[in-house]
Amino acid sequence: MLIQPGELLSTINYPSDVRKLDPSQLVQLADELRQFIVDNVSVYGGHFGASLGVVELTVALHYAFNTPSDQLVWDVGHQAYGHKILTGRKDVFHTNRFYGGISGFPKRKESEYDAFGVGHSSTSISAALGMAVASHYKKENQKQHIAVIGDGALTGGMAFEAMNHAGVANSNLLIVLNDNCMSIDPNVGALKDYLTDITTSHTYNKVKDEVWNILGKISKFGPNAQEIASKVENSVKGFLIKSSNLFESLNLRYFGPVDGHDVTHLAQIFNDLKDIPGPKILHCVTVKGKGFALAEKDQTKWHAPGKFDKLTGEIHKKVYDAPQPPKYQDVFGHTLVELAEKNEKIMGITPAMPSGSSMNIMMKAMPDRAFDVGIAEQHAVTFSAGLATQGLTPFCNIYSTFMQRAYDQVIHDVCLQNLPVVFCLDRAGFSGADGPTHHGAYDIAFMRCIPNMVVSSPMNEEELRNLMYTAQLQKEGAFTIRYPRGNGVMPNWKTPFKEIPIGQGRKLREGGDLAILTLGHIGNYATEACHMLEEDHVDAAHYDMRFVKPLDEAMLHEIFKSHKYVITVEDGCLQGGFGSAIIEFMADNGYTSKIVRLGIPDDVIEHGEQHELHHECGFDTQGIYEAAIKLLEPSGVLK
Amino acid sequence: MLIQPGELLSTINYPSDVRKLDPSQLVQLADELRQFIVDNVSVYGGHFGASLGVVELTVALHYAFNTPSDQLVWDVGHQAYGHKILTGRKDVFHTNRFYGGISGFPKRKESEYDAFGVGHSSTSISAALGMAVASHYKKENQKQHIAVIGDGALTGGMAFEAMNHAGVANSNLLIVLNDNCMSIDPNVGALKDYLTDITTSHTYNKVKDEVWNILGKISKFGPNAQEIASKVENSVKGFLIKSSNLFESLNLRYFGPVDGHDVTHLAQIFNDLKDIPGPKILHCVTVKGKGFALAEKDQTKWHAPGKFDKLTGEIHKKVYDAPQPPKYQDVFGHTLVELAEKNEKIMGITPAMPSGSSMNIMMKAMPDRAFDVGIAEQHAVTFSAGLATQGLTPFCNIYSTFMQRAYDQVIHDVCLQNLPVVFCLDRAGFSGADGPTHHGAYDIAFMRCIPNMVVSSPMNEEELRNLMYTAQLQKEGAFTIRYPRGNGVMPNWKTPFKEIPIGQGRKLREGGDLAILTLGHIGNYATEACHMLEEDHVDAAHYDMRFVKPLDEAMLHEIFKSHKYVITVEDGCLQGGFGSAIIEFMADNGYTSKIVRLGIPDDVIEHGEQHELHHECGFDTQGIYEAAIKLLEPSGVLK
Repeated sequence: MLIQPGELLSTINYPSDVRKLDPSQLVQLADELRQFIVDNVSVYGGHFGASLGVVELTVALHYAFNTPSDQLVWDVGHQAYGHKILTGRKDVFHTNRFYGGISGFPKRKESEYDAFGVGHSSTSISAALGMAVASHYKKENQKQHIAVIGDGALTGGMAFEAMNHAGVANSNLLIVLNDNCMSIDPNVGALKDYLTDITTSHTYNKVKDEVWNILGKISKFGPNAQEIASKVENSVKGFLIKSSNLFESLNLRYFGPVDGHDVTHLAQIFNDLKDIPGPKILHCVTVKGKGFALAEKDQTKWHAPGKFDKLTGEIHKKVYDAPQPPKYQDVFGHTLVELAEKNEKIMGITPAMPSGSSMNIMMKAMPDRAFDVGIAEQHAVTFSAGLATQGLTPFCNIYSTFMQRAYDQVIHDVCLQNLPVVFCLDRAGFSGADGPTHHGAYDIAFMRCIPNMVVSSPMNEEELRNLMYTAQLQKEGAFTIRYPRGNGVMPNWKTPFKEIPIGQGRKLREGGDLAILTLGHIGNYATEACHMLEEDHVDAAHYDMRFVKPLDEAMLHEIFKSHKYVITVEDGCLQGGFGSAIIEFMADNGYTSKIVRLGIPDDVIEHGEQHELHHECGFDTQGIYEAAIKLLEPSGVLK
Repeated sequence: MLIQPGELLSTINYPSDVRKLDPSQLVQLADELRQFIVDNVSVYGGHFGASLGVVELTVALHYAFNTPSDQLVWDVGHQAYGHKILTGRKDVFHTNRFYGGISGFPKRKESEYDAFGVGHSSTSISAALGMAVASHYKKENQKQHIAVIGDGALTGGMAFEAMNHAGVANSNLLIVLNDNCMSIDPNVGALKDYLTDITTSHTYNKVKDEVWNILGKISKFGPNAQEIASKVENSVKGFLIKSSNLFESLNLRYFGPVDGHDVTHLAQIFNDLKDIPGPKILHCVTVKGKGFALAEKDQTKWHAPGKFDKLTGEIHKKVYDAPQPPKYQDVFGHTLVELAEKNEKIMGITPAMPSGSSMNIMMKAMPDRAFDVGIAEQHAVTFSAGLATQGLTPFCNIYSTFMQRAYDQVIHDVCLQNLPVVFCLDRAGFSGADGPTHHGAYDIAFMRCIPNMVVSSPMNEEELRNLMYTAQLQKEGAFTIRYPRGNGVMPNWKTPFKEIPIGQGRKLREGGDLAILTLGHIGNYATEACHMLEEDHVDAAHYDMRFVKPLDEAMLHEIFKSHKYVITVEDGCLQGGFGSAIIEFMADNGYTSKIVRLGIPDDVIEHGEQHELHHECGFDTQGIYEAAIKLLEPSGVLK
């Protein structure tokens, strides 16, 4: 079912069409754009609230600026649906986030209007500043460079690094602060309070004007000094509390706050700002989910609600006859509380993903022991290290892809000091519809090369629980547990805890023809592949190694002594990953079995359902089966 | 030669001894401590200016606070010599930075007074906040937690992430801002200007008091309103310009600025601050190199000057009869300018290491094309990506160890978008005396697993020049060139440029008994080892692979077809590194030669001279020779 755009929107294919409109038409365009997003996302799914919140900003930006010559960078980018629709992708918007379709985030190779590919937070100011400095160098001084960044993304340290540079760079840079008090969950931290303060009280500029006005009057009204002085005092009081401006401290000219839903006014302001040289920031106040009442009310739930009935607001959920396996996320969240009830040393840390990681379960149950530190992965890790120095056992939960943001802190602050921090890497492997920016593809390679580090991955819910149980027993060293987005395989997952000896794998199946070694949830594909092979009279052994570091060397000796054919399977990059660890063992011990490594190839894998991507990379059930058959071809095993 | 401490300092072994002194004795202690540092560093080398600048802070902190129960975290830590001397390490201080001696940075396993191991910048607030939150949770509410951070380190984004959290955390945290306007080079950015503003003008608190006083007077002096109003106006004007306080915006109580060299006053302030609950910041103004005139004057040169004559200030330099090979750093700096003169697209970026990386050569020659962006590796990379989107070719020079800080940006902002950014990783391999926090041990593993990435390393100066030349010819994709700290091997290094086909290795020596494959400068050890082996009548081939990604597959086929014994040598971690790339090739192509991988083992390697550490890890000349002999033992080649 193709969604029809409204009357005015149907005439808009590119921003040049927007710029032909009369200012009085912008409200209608914004309304139709919003409706088109609601119509599409309700049917096809996707991110929702963020794009609704910036509909007016989007229209006004493309109206006032000369995109794509002017460079527009969206931070994070899940709010860029309106931008995509106005920039040549209205007719393919229904393919958004589907395998082979357009990306849910801005992407340079998708459109010249996507000035910078995004997905992770807090990159926009750095990127736009780079563009602005390049334009200055190339003497393209008419070019405008705009970074649209949320108040949540602004807590990420690199945004601050960029502002520190922008404040002294001779560049034509406009930062549009999209202040809606939200990340995916409500934004946290001192900066949020500060932005709220300057928004809800009189604004910086208004207070400044007021002070000057009243002081001017003192001179004229000579004798009534006392009364006037009292007025001054009140003004200055207000000023003292409200005026200090963080952005001006960094030499960015600050404007606002303004209503981020007044599209006509926004267009006019943007037009005015074009003439003001140097780095500047416009503070826009918006409402996430704007225009869809339920989304305004429960902004976390409606960040990416899935498909829903746009009239009733009912979110469609599949109905099952039997109990289903839980999400790994929820197993983590509930298990952490269960463990923390018995072990008072356990603390929980999430950088701005309380609901995504299910850390919110512990935050609710034990508010003094679980922390959302904001979009701040670096701080999250070193804060955890600080807790660990005091004898506590922090569980620091960071999505695999975001752990890239805290890599130095893992090495420098945790592992070099051999501190007992447990890293739970959620969304390891393919993220699915979010695509390459969010795939957790490299973590096995980049974590296992660090000393004082255990790297493990559970094949099911029980294993996750037991790995978590085991991790909190350690007195030193980092302990990584990586697990995928989505559901496990055990409807009855609340099994009793059992310690797993560090580095010990599991033999799941005997078999003499070949051995399949797996790490993590994708081991379930191997179980199925073994059944398929059995039908071909191939007898495959299956080992769930559980740990890539340390390796189960006793088990590996057993495997390589008795198997000439070996396959390794992982949902991580093939360069330096799990399979590489296995062949390092082989090389170091002189084994020469034929080995095939299955995993993510050295390429950018786009978005799609996880199983579609597993299939593409050849390590789903079919892929493992076919690799086994191919490997065994010269062996004579196959009948 | 053991350095004798002064009379008072000789009675001080631990901070408890400091705390027994009368406040009037603190100046003498500070003077003697400073002299002891001068005496030692002039003879034994080490970091210099930073520790001189915090002598008074150090004495005052240990006097006022109850260390080690109170937790004192030094950011970066090269300023902690005074701290080490006062905390039980005076008698071993002459071993500072020597192999087997004490570390040049605070280190948990060295002393209970070293609350947190440091080396990289901007970690102290996160760590101290973690400690403070732990104390609060454990109801140890009398405990104090202090982070001492420089204005340079404050530009690192994670410091901002930590302040954003600290401002809303219920914690007993004191941030001591050691403001000396310097990193190793002069500090840059808007924040530095801001700190200078609030320091050189009236202070926040003073202005605030003044405004209130004058307003109070208006009431009393009723009739003279005009004159008074004018005074108010002037005050408010000053206030408007100077008072806005960035730290108070983040809900940190701000005190200062104070003179960081008035030890008695500092001790009193610290004592007062103990009674003020919640997160707070004390702004101390210090002079880097304080008390040693030359160090005050040229602060970059005297950051770590080497050994010197403490009376004349003459820095000792070795004198050679013949021209010596240059530092790789200098080859980089000069070559970059040489290339940039011909290629107008080339830009240079360094995060706060202009002199260390020799980017200062381009910054001086082409100030509009080379940028120091401050201690801000994340921003440096994404800023480079922004430049690259506009058709420019950025050379982003970051020490290997600091590249860990920008790992996500390399993946997410450069490689996923296939942008042509050249990463020059200085100080790859062992850093030497700086120790494990600064070793560039993991870069091969963590860079080669990223798609759209070339990873290379030169064996000498000419190769570095040619790799740089080749890199700037690329139209897309990241290009990494890693090279070590220190000198190359070619006194006459300014050879003409020659393009190197991407992924092509060099055969340096034929030999039938075994093949030695090397990456980078440590290949020179292999050259020597081959000579040693020759004397034993062992005929070793030597290949300088130059690229670990992509590999020279044609050359590797040739090698493995003709060699049953192979050794790989790298100055990087063995897990997932260069050797692993080679055995991945073997496994994928069914080769079964006996292979030994030499490199950095899975352990924390401490500090020492580079050659000492290479020897320890068994990949210096002797180590390669011995590995070859051992590998060949069963072969019958050895006579």
